[in-house]
Amino acid sequence: MPSASPGQLWSVDEHLEDILSTVQPLDPIELQLLDAQGCVLVEDVTVPVSLPPFDNSSMDGYAVRVADVAGASEEYPAVLTVIGDVAAGQAEQPAVGPGQAARIMTGAPVPPGAEAVVPVEWTDGGLGGGPVSGMRAHSAAPEAAFGEVRVHRPAAARAHVRAQGSDVRAGDRALSTGTVLGPPQIALLAAIGRGTVRVRPRPRVVVVSTGSELVQPGEALGQGQIYDSNSFALAAAARDAGALAYRVGAVSDDAETLRSTIEDQLIRADLIVTTGGVSVGAYDVVKEALSGIGDPDEESGLGAGGGVEFRKLAMQPGKPQGFGSVGPDHTPLLALPGNPVSSYVSFELFVRPAIRTLMGLAGDAVHRPTTRAVLRSDKALTSPAGRRQFLRGAYDAGAGAIDPVGGSGSHLIAALAQADALIVVPEAVTSVEPGTEVDVVLLG
Amino acid sequence: MPSASPGQLWSVDEHLEDILSTVQPLDPIELQLLDAQGCVLVEDVTVPVSLPPFDNSSMDGYAVRVADVAGASEEYPAVLTVIGDVAAGQAEQPAVGPGQAARIMTGAPVPPGAEAVVPVEWTDGGLGGGPVSGMRAHSAAPEAAFGEVRVHRPAAARAHVRAQGSDVRAGDRALSTGTVLGPPQIALLAAIGRGTVRVRPRPRVVVVSTGSELVQPGEALGQGQIYDSNSFALAAAARDAGALAYRVGAVSDDAETLRSTIEDQLIRADLIVTTGGVSVGAYDVVKEALSGIGDPDEESGLGAGGGVEFRKLAMQPGKPQGFGSVGPDHTPLLALPGNPVSSYVSFELFVRPAIRTLMGLAGDAVHRPTTRAVLRSDKALTSPAGRRQFLRGAYDAGAGAIDPVGGSGSHLIAALAQADALIVVPEAVTSVEPGTEVDVVLLG
Repeated sequence: MPSASPGQLWSVDEHLEDILSTVQPLDPIELQLLDAQGCVLVEDVTVPVSLPPFDNSSMDGYAVRVADVAGASEEYPAVLTVIGDVAAGQAEQPAVGPGQAARIMTGAPVPPGAEAVVPVEWTDGGLGGGPVSGMRAHSAAPEAAFGEVRVHRPAAARAHVRAQGSDVRAGDRALSTGTVLGPPQIALLAAIGRGTVRVRPRPRVVVVSTGSELVQPGEALGQGQIYDSNSFALAAAARDAGALAYRVGAVSDDAETLRSTIEDQLIRADLIVTTGGVSVGAYDVVKEALSGIGDPDEESGLGAGGGVEFRKLAMQPGKPQGFGSVGPDHTPLLALPGNPVSSYVSFELFVRPAIRTLMGLAGDAVHRPTTRAVLRSDKALTSPAGRRQFLRGAYDAGAGAIDPVGGSGSHLIAALAQADALIVVPEAVTSVEPGTEVDVVLLG
Repeated sequence: MPSASPGQLWSVDEHLEDILSTVQPLDPIELQLLDAQGCVLVEDVTVPVSLPPFDNSSMDGYAVRVADVAGASEEYPAVLTVIGDVAAGQAEQPAVGPGQAARIMTGAPVPPGAEAVVPVEWTDGGLGGGPVSGMRAHSAAPEAAFGEVRVHRPAAARAHVRAQGSDVRAGDRALSTGTVLGPPQIALLAAIGRGTVRVRPRPRVVVVSTGSELVQPGEALGQGQIYDSNSFALAAAARDAGALAYRVGAVSDDAETLRSTIEDQLIRADLIVTTGGVSVGAYDVVKEALSGIGDPDEESGLGAGGGVEFRKLAMQPGKPQGFGSVGPDHTPLLALPGNPVSSYVSFELFVRPAIRTLMGLAGDAVHRPTTRAVLRSDKALTSPAGRRQFLRGAYDAGAGAIDPVGGSGSHLIAALAQADALIVVPEAVTSVEPGTEVDVVLLG
């Protein structure tokens, strides 16, 4: 942690680095396959049994011996005795001798003695006529598993046979540690018989908004009150980032209430996010409630954590920020400013990477993708010197351009709902002319 | 529906068009805000109350009259009488008369009489010394809400005041019908006081795999058996597409069992997806169980649906497909082939667009994004004439290139887990040379 003097501004990068060097990936647990969707694998998975586990047919047809169908044609078909069906999932297969065929279904094991499969469309299907387009259902015509079949074409050895191990072989590496489990990876794990898998769980993120002025949406607004939007926005954003989010209704500006609320939530929190109460006012309850904690002698309760440090960052919006840990498990806590745009931008810059680090993601996967785009605007953007400014924008991928949406005010939530990107104006830049290329964070 | 003759192949586009012209968006319901995340809005939302609802302070500081601080400097400060605090959420505010100031917090209403806010950093904070960096907490120093304050700088009228309605005005359109509700949209809805919102719900998708050879992952594999991977893969893929997925364990190849299983699931299904049993074999249970249904005289049970049509598509993998509706509510049903790669590709091409149509998405949002990329390969790709082939690939966005992964076999599930894109080889093309530009479906 850089030893910033009280009045010194932290850079965005210093604050982020402090967070990412402190927050550790969650301990792995064994989860059912579908519960592990979206999680990071924490084992190298080896294939226990080759896929396919046995030679099997890739077609519905007849399992035959190559010599028996050599030279067969529609005019001079090979006539074979059908000795029964080989269906998928059937444990015992009849042996195919000279002059014999077994009717076989896609995926069924190639029976002993057979060397190739001829598709049913290359045969008379046992009906004694021309080529057929399919088999009669066994339930409707069980006798079709026996009798004679006329084969109209020859087949090379192994034709329409999927060889054992042609997909993966026992002992191969199926998936490596660090892989994110999407549907295709879950498909592979199921296919090799894994019912459970070792992953890092989704982080449980508790979002607490603070402010005596906050009213739950849907209720009536009194004098001097506004609706609580941060707890909803950040709970939704936490889920989008991959977390399980718990929204805690707005807490009034009372330090003791806030402390006990957070202490109550510790049991289900891998990360705590608060909004509001972090600035320089006389009622900044988060700062008041959490500044004093972190006593190394305490062994339980909120105060047993590492403590929370409140900082000023060289950024706009989002200057006041708190970061640290609380409670006996040193649960990380990020205290964001209360303005809706400030808290949302702060979430994107600091909380999202923290959540994704807890998930076990690394490198680029921790961060939103960034790109460069040409500023498309009637007038120059202005930005305070010495602050990294994050403006809301609408990204036009086709044109490689970005249009600013709304102004720089940190209370402009309507514009935020029209934006899908953040325009980054570096600390040293105070004005950006239209047509200039700028850094853009894509909010996805 | 094109009137294809029995042996005729349907094109991929004809089959998709049939699905998308049949499947209708789900009826809208009113949901709690966080339950509506990811859903499509089905109302034009108007702002009921301007944001901010009242003039409020953008800083922690002092609410003053402009004339009282005109010409103030650190050397010649304006000395004002502090008449109390204005905190956020406080219903009553003291009126600020000439020579007076109210200590005010960010977000608190500008009290009557005051014309501007001076930040606390421009004052002595009531301490009688130089400029301060913040206020003392009210709980620790309640007396600081009264006394005298020295203001070191003048303030223009409305300085640090956020005007009522400067974000959005009552009567403005906040969000339009058709908007997908992500975190910023949820933020706006909460901010304007909406506790619930009218959206199309997430579709409930029931996934049923069929096959007597299928064993649940984690159990022991017997002779001729393989693990069920499709129900896991497609349940995961359905969730990725935005659905609530219900996985039904593998059903054996018995038509009556399958019919009763599907009938049981109707109660919780907006869409049913089956895998396997759709080809030309004698044990193709899905085809057998569902071909005969769709009796217009039936009023209840599975048979009351519109019926399921089984087709051959001009594609590889995924040639045999079924589509139709079952049960009294004409619940749409897609019957996919059973090979893992076939079913996964079929899901991407047909089921995902159906799910997204049920969600109320339209246009590009229904489909995976596509792009063009240069084939990067040692040898040419081959593809059967008259079939649209979908090969698995790994997309390199930086190079604008695509590398084929694995072969064309529809059982190659290990390669699927390494792919993030599908390479599309058109019907008329039988060979694609390295360096050729190809269509690519990005699997995201």
